[in-house]
Amino acid sequence: MFPSASARANFFAVCLLSVTALVPTASAAQTLPPVDTSVRQSFERVLSDPRVKAALAAIERAEPEAIQEQFRLTEIPAPPFKEEKRAAYYLDLLKARGLDEAYLDEEGNAIGLRKGSGNGPLLLIAAHLDTVFPEGVDTSVKERNGRFYAPGIGDDTRGLAAMLSVIDALNASGIETEADIMFAGNVGEEGRGDLRGIKAIFRDHPDIDGFISIDGVRMGRITNGGTGSRRFEFRFTGPGGHSFGAFGLASAIHAMGRAIAKIGDLETPSDPKTTFTVGTVAGGTSVNSIAADAVFAIDLRSNDRTQLAILEQKAKDAALEAVAEENARWGRGEISVDFVLIGDRPVGRTEPSSPLVQLTRLAFDELAIEFRGLSISSTDSNVPMSLGIPAITIDGGGDGGGAHSPDEWFVPTDSHLGPQASLLLILGLAGIEGSTQALLPKL
Amino acid sequence: MFPSASARANFFAVCLLSVTALVPTASAAQTLPPVDTSVRQSFERVLSDPRVKAALAAIERAEPEAIQEQFRLTEIPAPPFKEEKRAAYYLDLLKARGLDEAYLDEEGNAIGLRKGSGNGPLLLIAAHLDTVFPEGVDTSVKERNGRFYAPGIGDDTRGLAAMLSVIDALNASGIETEADIMFAGNVGEEGRGDLRGIKAIFRDHPDIDGFISIDGVRMGRITNGGTGSRRFEFRFTGPGGHSFGAFGLASAIHAMGRAIAKIGDLETPSDPKTTFTVGTVAGGTSVNSIAADAVFAIDLRSNDRTQLAILEQKAKDAALEAVAEENARWGRGEISVDFVLIGDRPVGRTEPSSPLVQLTRLAFDELAIEFRGLSISSTDSNVPMSLGIPAITIDGGGDGGGAHSPDEWFVPTDSHLGPQASLLLILGLAGIEGSTQALLPKL
Repeated sequence: MFPSASARANFFAVCLLSVTALVPTASAAQTLPPVDTSVRQSFERVLSDPRVKAALAAIERAEPEAIQEQFRLTEIPAPPFKEEKRAAYYLDLLKARGLDEAYLDEEGNAIGLRKGSGNGPLLLIAAHLDTVFPEGVDTSVKERNGRFYAPGIGDDTRGLAAMLSVIDALNASGIETEADIMFAGNVGEEGRGDLRGIKAIFRDHPDIDGFISIDGVRMGRITNGGTGSRRFEFRFTGPGGHSFGAFGLASAIHAMGRAIAKIGDLETPSDPKTTFTVGTVAGGTSVNSIAADAVFAIDLRSNDRTQLAILEQKAKDAALEAVAEENARWGRGEISVDFVLIGDRPVGRTEPSSPLVQLTRLAFDELAIEFRGLSISSTDSNVPMSLGIPAITIDGGGDGGGAHSPDEWFVPTDSHLGPQASLLLILGLAGIEGSTQALLPKL
Repeated sequence: MFPSASARANFFAVCLLSVTALVPTASAAQTLPPVDTSVRQSFERVLSDPRVKAALAAIERAEPEAIQEQFRLTEIPAPPFKEEKRAAYYLDLLKARGLDEAYLDEEGNAIGLRKGSGNGPLLLIAAHLDTVFPEGVDTSVKERNGRFYAPGIGDDTRGLAAMLSVIDALNASGIETEADIMFAGNVGEEGRGDLRGIKAIFRDHPDIDGFISIDGVRMGRITNGGTGSRRFEFRFTGPGGHSFGAFGLASAIHAMGRAIAKIGDLETPSDPKTTFTVGTVAGGTSVNSIAADAVFAIDLRSNDRTQLAILEQKAKDAALEAVAEENARWGRGEISVDFVLIGDRPVGRTEPSSPLVQLTRLAFDELAIEFRGLSISSTDSNVPMSLGIPAITIDGGGDGGGAHSPDEWFVPTDSHLGPQASLLLILGLAGIEGSTQALLPKL
């Protein structure tokens, strides 16, 4: 049951690099405000456009090829901080679609711009290139019993494929939008990537007015809340020494234990949901040495910015008190602690009354996608939400499971619904030149 | 200053396998009882034997070749639990010396027996084959600035070489001892080896009446006390879950932290010296997961058997209380803890009035070796001491440093004094047929 020390250590090293699961926290039971009449009318005008009908049909027809592209993308590994190969390939795909601009930015994001008629808002659509899987993991797609298995096949290669389908459909339709639309295959959504791709885009493009993240597989949820997280390594250091010969020295591990004990007793509100855990721990050099160093990684989260800040302060205070106690226990002030920020995902929220949410619901209804509720989660949308820019995360279509595990799988059942819903949402927000106005306000 | 998580983890894995330093704890200031007249007289009779004088001179003459053998032995790696190659070579060396018996026992110890005249006691002399260094470490001997560097060159290859010199000197002298003398190159002295070689010999040979361990380099100390140690892994397990989605689950790491905090506040006597430390810690799978498992390794030591038992119970109680607190904190009894014994070195002591200690002091005086005091430490002698069998650990001669580090070094300055002192001690204890009686009592 317990792996060997050596196997454990390797496992630990791999795992530290990985997982930030997308864990929704809302139920489908929310009652949403009624859809604004103006939004509904605009959406109906979009739907009645024969070019739109043709574009929806084109998406469905082209879906088998889109799935093949999804599999090709899956088989190009994109470990955290090593998305270059997949980014280069994705950039080629964007360029092949004849966008007005297509380039890699300094952070490594593959970006394409489809200009609108001018004077409209700027809408960003993105799916993330990175997976949680380290180098060397076999990403070849294997079919078993009707399921397609490969690490990363859904999260978020499905989003990347769906975005290409949307671009193809827009191009084939001959529709000109009022808004400029920026498409991004972005880096660094997972784990220690810490949303670095999307952070860079919003830093470089302060003129973006709205954001849609296409992330995941199964349609139905609208993620309109961004759980904030702050992650730290708390690093304890001291002189260390022989367990017997130097007995009486303060220990980095003992100080760390005291800190964990105190943190374990912290109280947080259940609403807004605020949580903490010391997720990993390592330290010491041998069983018979007073530890000279010890480190833990702590995950602090909240759906509320203030609660998150309060929790962070409490955790740091607990560690400082623990160090003081350990030093006082032995009469020498030799242990110290440093706080190293290793993750920072801002809290954010998009109002359910936002045209992004309203249009998504209308698109779901039109495509007979069951609405499974609003959710609060940690996605690329956290970044714009925290900046006051309306943003949502929706799924890319199809079915799947096992995200962040080597047994991740995907089934393309009704997967065309993903890009179809995105297309309708985008057209509603971006407006169709000569027909409807962009519902996305310019900020 | 802080290595990466991955480097740390590998380091941790290596270090868990290694080090049990030999840390003496006594000063040279002890006042020893006067040497018994009978011991002094017997020792003087040994000294006056011309064959003994010739044997001492032979050791000094043969020392350069002994050093070469020491280096050859050093270059045969003997990692913990992997001493086979060095043991086989050492057995060949014993066989080449024409002992009455020479064999490998089931534990892997290389054993040779030099029979005495009959009806005498049985004296065991040993040096340990194993080093602390894992496989793959370069053990080639390199000379720099008059020092010979190689991992394990002193600890305890020096002891192995000194023992060979003693056998050669006995053989060349033509002396028959009254006692049977067993020579062992034994396995498992270091770290997790947990004295397994010597434990096996005393299990298989309940008729041994006394023990001399030759371990280390610089002469002068007599280790007549065995610090006892009990080492455990405390393994905490629970269900684990997502840090945010499953918040409210008890954490294996949090329970472990509570245990460490409590252990950090334990009180132990300074005399008999009794110590504890949580030396290493590992746990968790990712920063954003409530930990399903966590483990620490704890070192408990004392120079007193009862104090060691009390300390062990306190540490276990602390962990059980910690688990109960963590489970109560979240209202669910999901964390548990197991105690896995990973090291057990019994407490022991040989009286300063023992002929082993008295004869060693006389030998030191005769050879003008400065007596640097009695010491209490953790060596192979712990095992016989704990069984009530007189035992001491003395050094093998020469000078050196950096034991247990890759920069371990050795200088053969006056190194012949090591086997010379051992020879005099052995002859005093074993008796010379036709001249002196064995001072080692039959038990």
